[in-house]
Amino acid sequence: MGQRRIAIAGYGNLGRGVAAAVGQNADMTLHAVFTRRDPSTIDPPTPQTPVLPWDELLDHRDEVDVLVLCGGSKDDLPQQGPELAAHFTTVDSFDTHARIPEYVAAVDAAARAGGNTSIVAVGWDPGMFSLNRLLGEALLPEGGTYTFWGPGLSQGHSDALRRVPGVAAGVQYTVPSPAAIDAVRSGSRPELTTREKHTRECYVVLEDGADAAEVERAVVTMPHYFADYDTTVTVISAEELAREHADMPHGGFVIRSGTTGGGHDQVVEYRLQLGSNPEFTASVLVAYARAAARLNERGETGALTVLDVAPSLLSPKPVDQLRAELL
Amino acid sequence: MGQRRIAIAGYGNLGRGVAAAVGQNADMTLHAVFTRRDPSTIDPPTPQTPVLPWDELLDHRDEVDVLVLCGGSKDDLPQQGPELAAHFTTVDSFDTHARIPEYVAAVDAAARAGGNTSIVAVGWDPGMFSLNRLLGEALLPEGGTYTFWGPGLSQGHSDALRRVPGVAAGVQYTVPSPAAIDAVRSGSRPELTTREKHTRECYVVLEDGADAAEVERAVVTMPHYFADYDTTVTVISAEELAREHADMPHGGFVIRSGTTGGGHDQVVEYRLQLGSNPEFTASVLVAYARAAARLNERGETGALTVLDVAPSLLSPKPVDQLRAELL
Ligand SMILES: NC(=O)c1ccc[n+]([C@@H]2O[C@H](COP(=O)([O-])OP(=O)(O)OC[C@H]3O[C@@H](n4cnc5c(N)ncnc54)[C@H](OP(=O)(O)O)[C@@H]3O)[C@@H](O)[C@H]2O)c1
Ligand SMILES: NC(=O)c1ccc[n+]([C@@H]2O[C@H](COP(=O)([O-])OP(=O)(O)OC[C@H]3O[C@@H](n4cnc5c(N)ncnc54)[C@H](OP(=O)(O)O)[C@@H]3O)[C@@H](O)[C@H]2O)c1
Repeated sequence: MGQRRIAIAGYGNLGRGVAAAVGQNADMTLHAVFTRRDPSTIDPPTPQTPVLPWDELLDHRDEVDVLVLCGGSKDDLPQQGPELAAHFTTVDSFDTHARIPEYVAAVDAAARAGGNTSIVAVGWDPGMFSLNRLLGEALLPEGGTYTFWGPGLSQGHSDALRRVPGVAAGVQYTVPSPAAIDAVRSGSRPELTTREKHTRECYVVLEDGADAAEVERAVVTMPHYFADYDTTVTVISAEELAREHADMPHGGFVIRSGTTGGGHDQVVEYRLQLGSNPEFTASVLVAYARAAARLNERGETGALTVLDVAPSLLSPKPVDQLRAELL
Repeated sequence: MGQRRIAIAGYGNLGRGVAAAVGQNADMTLHAVFTRRDPSTIDPPTPQTPVLPWDELLDHRDEVDVLVLCGGSKDDLPQQGPELAAHFTTVDSFDTHARIPEYVAAVDAAARAGGNTSIVAVGWDPGMFSLNRLLGEALLPEGGTYTFWGPGLSQGHSDALRRVPGVAAGVQYTVPSPAAIDAVRSGSRPELTTREKHTRECYVVLEDGADAAEVERAVVTMPHYFADYDTTVTVISAEELAREHADMPHGGFVIRSGTTGGGHDQVVEYRLQLGSNPEFTASVLVAYARAAARLNERGETGALTVLDVAPSLLSPKPVDQLRAELL
């Protein structure tokens, strides 16, 4: 078994994270990065890694074991996912929760037809959080599951913030309520409203002449995004935004609070504190790329999710070693 | 698919927990409890559940889908595990970490020969903690893994405590150090000594005429068990022991602290707060019993561990429903 050859399709935050993650795994090598943009405008992750145009992808079918799809979930993956699964074993981080069943079905058909294996919706949510929601309810059938997000930068809410008239730039942090987490950890299984679970903190740079009070009012009353939360708006300078808010930290908690048959309370908590959301997501994608290659070598084709993958397939170590070291 | 028929072999703390857990899972029914003791001396979990003598086990082969082995890891399972895997699909919570590879090998040979499937070393440690140690290092290859136990009652250390001359009865709680956990959560990846990670709290009832200071000295200096820890010994009455220390709470933390390829720190934490150690362990066993039955129906025989089992096999829900609800 030589090194597995990984290629990246789409080179944004996640694509860069995947390139960095492949470098941390000795059993993998980075074959190439593919982009829809002009490759000459893109800095390659290492001097040896070619950045190639998208339309050359299919020429590399035989040289790529797993293609990691790093396009956006909204516009790129619904098309790229099925299209590329017809030709490559793939992993992706599709995260439009409500559309996952139809996406799985589309990728599954294409992957089966091509004899490929695709693990979709990989990352932390969906991904590791989904896995923990499943384990929680399977191990403690009588109970409640609580997901909290943050503290972390929300891409979608930051985009919404930037669309407010008078806002030149800005970021939004989702912050889980410590009181709500403590209540859930206590095993009391509280019913929590949207407002009780999370607060939203916005940092905005104003456009010239914009009225701060007017911007704040527009933000905190925005339906769907902010109106249902306690939201704060802090005006900062463009310099401060660049200096203090360039990272993409995120994370959160999945907590299962249940009662076992003899009447005892049991609380299981899974918590992520991510210094970089895209780098962690990329790291998860790369571990599942290893699993996808192995499943394909065994002839298990079609679309799968993290719920379907045996954990030992994620590790480069042989099963005997895992049992001896980790059980 | 009717209900899966579960039987219990050995009826101690864990066996009672399994009976209670089966009652929480609508797709299962409890066929019988088997014991090496005189069945007439044992209270059945429900009036309908027969308690039967051990030597009738094999007569029930065709009526049992999964036999849950609830014997002790030290003396019972090394013999019962392989012996019963020859005749039944089984799950067990074998927890002598150092002997897991040889135990897996012995059960594997028997299970394969019998066409059965056995998932061994199931529970929380080994079990869910092992799974999280694996996920931690697979997702974050550059980093350190920290396991903390407690706060909780340690069976092994309580047994050692009770062997001290002058001790009539007693329990020992393992308590993880909050300062050590905070240091690990901060991402600083500290090197921690045994003494820095956990403290040990003993509650003892003295024998008539025993000298408290003498007992305390014997406990805190006991090699392997207490000498390497900051240990406290509190003398209590037999009434207080019965009133305050009858439960078997436990739990702990598995924390992976790593750095992804772009240099960002990432911390993943899995935490259990168990009101009852045997009831939670039993609940985990029952979910893996479901997986064992399914794997056996698919023809996958031999011994497996939690590291080898796809999470979706643990849930009574069909995969499509899991994807729609939990991803
Ligand atoms: N499951 C999870 O837990 C999880 C977590 C985080 C993110 N995600 C998902 O991951 C997806 C990708 O996230 P991302 O942060 O990598 O998005 P992104 O940076 O916007 O990149 C998405 C795509 O846009 C193109 N692109 C990137 N930079 C560009 C630029 N400067 N100009 C024009 N096009 C550019 C790239 O394709 P080309 O190279 O082909 O142009 C890239 O593949 C998100 O949509 C999200 O759904 C999932
Ligand atoms: N993996 C994990 O996370 C985990 C967690 C907790 C425990 N465990 C394991 O689970 C094993 C069983 O734990 P347990 O608490 O159920 O042990 P236990 O109560 O001592 O029971 C062990 C066996 O002893 C017999 N027994 C029970 N009560 C008895 C009594 N009053 N007199 C005589 N015999 C009696 C029963 O067999 P008969 O009915 O045949 O007599 C029973 O199967 C432990 O050895 C431990 O290794 C694993």
